[in-house]
Amino acid sequence: MKGKFISFEGCEGSGKSTQIRLLAEYLDKTGVPYIVTREPGGSEIAEKIRGIVLDGKNKNMSDECEALLYAAAREQHLSEIIIPALNEGKLVICDRYVHSSLAYQGYARGLGEEYIKAINSRVIKEYMPDVTLFLDISPDAAFNRKHGADKDDRMEQQGMEFHRLVYKGYKAHCGDKNFCPVNCGGEKAQTHANIIKTLKEYNIIK
Amino acid sequence: MKGKFISFEGCEGSGKSTQIRLLAEYLDKTGVPYIVTREPGGSEIAEKIRGIVLDGKNKNMSDECEALLYAAAREQHLSEIIIPALNEGKLVICDRYVHSSLAYQGYARGLGEEYIKAINSRVIKEYMPDVTLFLDISPDAAFNRKHGADKDDRMEQQGMEFHRLVYKGYKAHCGDKNFCPVNCGGEKAQTHANIIKTLKEYNIIK
Repeated sequence: MKGKFISFEGCEGSGKSTQIRLLAEYLDKTGVPYIVTREPGGSEIAEKIRGIVLDGKNKNMSDECEALLYAAAREQHLSEIIIPALNEGKLVICDRYVHSSLAYQGYARGLGEEYIKAINSRVIKEYMPDVTLFLDISPDAAFNRKHGADKDDRMEQQGMEFHRLVYKGYKAHCGDKNFCPVNCGGEKAQTHANIIKTLKEYNIIK
Repeated sequence: MKGKFISFEGCEGSGKSTQIRLLAEYLDKTGVPYIVTREPGGSEIAEKIRGIVLDGKNKNMSDECEALLYAAAREQHLSEIIIPALNEGKLVICDRYVHSSLAYQGYARGLGEEYIKAINSRVIKEYMPDVTLFLDISPDAAFNRKHGADKDDRMEQQGMEFHRLVYKGYKAHCGDKNFCPVNCGGEKAQTHANIIKTLKEYNIIK
């Protein structure tokens, strides 16, 4: 694995998209080769799976089905997009990765982290991010920023209580190796600066 | 679980569709309430997953992604169709179930049965078939019957060597509890008679 791998995590509305865009703009100036990709999706087959798992019309989807679809999309995305990019020495910036499954399906849906880890074991292999940037903003504040942005999205359709559980699921990982909470309650530029500082500390960028 | 649950298994072209139709015609005469369903698919969401996993255009699908999609479709099918039908006291006749995953993805794809069992553990729960009818015909003979029937199907696009491995994967389960090989090398009517005999022996029908 020659390239570096970073993932962004956080509740709906935590500002991942904005921060990823700011990071990409920063990298453009430095000349670091990188790709920006996302879960679920990122490859043709994985985007088809995304189309099912996030379709607001699929209201009867069971929690286990949801967790398995995320794992299936992850596998395909990893093998088709992430691993080849890492092998080319690129910095991979991924909007959501396995901590989303742990927080959303493992904790908030109540399936348990052990099950999530079991179904993802052969998917992840050794490909854990060098840094996971958790945009740490209270779910109420984050959700209010985002709510209504995409009413067809199954995850965004969930109520506040669900999103509070997701946040708790994420918080439980603060302290884990390479899992870095980023304070993002202030201005976007400040959050961006926090992210750049963290990435430098982890030797992801110079 | 008030109803009974039977699954049909076998290689492509083994005659599952024909035998299920003959069984349904038989049951129509007896008045036993039943449903006929299939994997992958059987419910609206599961059929969408089927559309991805069997689409011959998805040539880059990884083996792990394939196995996870089958498990996801199974969960949805089980919770939306099979369990409610069993609770209504119906006989559920399912074209393929978990032994397909064991034979196709576990054995022929080489993922191993332990992984297949792990990802299916919370899917299957206690819902194993009362009888699994394995239509035991050599894969070469079976494949020749069927080949070319659906050239857009990813599984049917696989070469003969793959289907021989699938057959070996099935054969490894002969001797398992409730897994019943059915000789189906002869006439359709004889195979049907063998199936009825087996179902009577297992007290599925009278």
